[in-house]
Amino acid sequence: MLINTIKELREQVKNWKKQGLTIGLVPTMGALHQGHLSLIKKCVEKCDKTIVSVFVNPIQFCPGEDLEKYPRTLDEDKKLCEDAGVNIVFAPSPKEMYGEGHILSNDFLTYVIPPFFYVDKLCGKSRVGHFDGVCTVVNKLFNIVQPDFAFFGEKDRQQLIILKKMVKDLNIPVEIVPCPIIRETSGLALSSRNKYLTDKGKLDALALSKILFNIKICYNKGIKDVKALKETAYAFLNNSHALEYLEFRDKDTLEEKFSADNNTIVFIAAKVENVRLIDNIAL
Amino acid sequence: MLINTIKELREQVKNWKKQGLTIGLVPTMGALHQGHLSLIKKCVEKCDKTIVSVFVNPIQFCPGEDLEKYPRTLDEDKKLCEDAGVNIVFAPSPKEMYGEGHILSNDFLTYVIPPFFYVDKLCGKSRVGHFDGVCTVVNKLFNIVQPDFAFFGEKDRQQLIILKKMVKDLNIPVEIVPCPIIRETSGLALSSRNKYLTDKGKLDALALSKILFNIKICYNKGIKDVKALKETAYAFLNNSHALEYLEFRDKDTLEEKFSADNNTIVFIAAKVENVRLIDNIAL
Repeated sequence: MLINTIKELREQVKNWKKQGLTIGLVPTMGALHQGHLSLIKKCVEKCDKTIVSVFVNPIQFCPGEDLEKYPRTLDEDKKLCEDAGVNIVFAPSPKEMYGEGHILSNDFLTYVIPPFFYVDKLCGKSRVGHFDGVCTVVNKLFNIVQPDFAFFGEKDRQQLIILKKMVKDLNIPVEIVPCPIIRETSGLALSSRNKYLTDKGKLDALALSKILFNIKICYNKGIKDVKALKETAYAFLNNSHALEYLEFRDKDTLEEKFSADNNTIVFIAAKVENVRLIDNIAL
Repeated sequence: MLINTIKELREQVKNWKKQGLTIGLVPTMGALHQGHLSLIKKCVEKCDKTIVSVFVNPIQFCPGEDLEKYPRTLDEDKKLCEDAGVNIVFAPSPKEMYGEGHILSNDFLTYVIPPFFYVDKLCGKSRVGHFDGVCTVVNKLFNIVQPDFAFFGEKDRQQLIILKKMVKDLNIPVEIVPCPIIRETSGLALSSRNKYLTDKGKLDALALSKILFNIKICYNKGIKDVKALKETAYAFLNNSHALEYLEFRDKDTLEEKFSADNNTIVFIAAKVENVRLIDNIAL
């Protein structure tokens, strides 16, 4: 069932809650792929009712980013959701979410702002304001849907860590369920932005996952020194890659690691054919 | 019943919700007076169950403000609540609300930040960060209690307007119920901070309400020009008063009014004996 308004959605959810049913939410920006479908599958298994939100959230795009050209494929998304057993696809308009003529700035809109320590690094460093937009829209979706569980992919690991922190700091009565990265057989992490890549670009993009897998192999062989582990990356990079970061950080606090351990996540971001790609791996 | 932990409170509320009972929340910093009791009375009348939170929220006090000396009178507060028919007094510790050893800064804590346009004026101008702390703690309390209704006094009118904006912007499923200012027979608006005043100070403090009442009389007589209305104030002021602001603003958007109308609120703040007092009136 497709629902476009907050009012209708709330009525449906209210009915389910009265029956004592558990509600799961999978927040997405649409352009669904196997990665999203793995989240949806987990949600359908775990919860009585599954709601997938499809909303390309304007306030999480920075100036110069791909808000306009971001893939919008609602008909296919709807079909995929139906086949996967989703109960509601919630696809509100920007007007429904933010009001008409609303100036989407912190001059006139209440924002949920994650801690600076969590956003001044990794993707937050180049995407200034991005996680403010993410936290604000996820907070809104949580208030609209009031789910018991919400499913987020480990692909966007910094986002996942920040949202878990938001839930804890604001005592939000929702349990965040992390879901593993889904990869092509080549190793490439699935992303809606992979659609922007040519065939050559997709081959070049493999460097990201190869670097991470190789670091994990080296770590398992006993190399803990982060400087030494980072150096193993350069063999995979050439001038097709604009490396943005390769960092070792704590899985909960995002503190930097100088010696890798089992709480370490390795984060990588690079541009290939001017498409910004991210990936990560837990050691 | 006094409850100190979030876990216990949630269990109690869950039971009530299962029975289909409506929940009302009156958030306070304690030191309860007749103003608070009018909110509590309204809540008891309107809701099946009434929860009063008593929490002196450290993150809404600015450096140099009265966090340490703010009156804490939990035993009397509890007694007043019992007599008023309150079901739960929720009095968490700062540790319960913000975690142990937590650095209470936006470096390490997720904040709910009201729009700049709403906070760069009136009390927000001198109390930088105050409304960030208010929105964050009220958001937390809403998530902890999940009330149907929450009661706030019109005494803190800018706070009320900002919280209504927060609820709208973040789609929070709570209805804010505004409650009128309670005054002594002298006209003085009740405030926990009145305790800091000497008898002479209380007499001097009457200037605030006198100014507002007089402006309302002039407005009702047909004077709409804000400049002219403001000039009527000076007769009531002497060197016992340090006037901070006297402003005419819209009741929802806080936009400045140059010609007063029925959507206008007159806001005043002044220090008397170095105690910061506020008051307001709707035209």
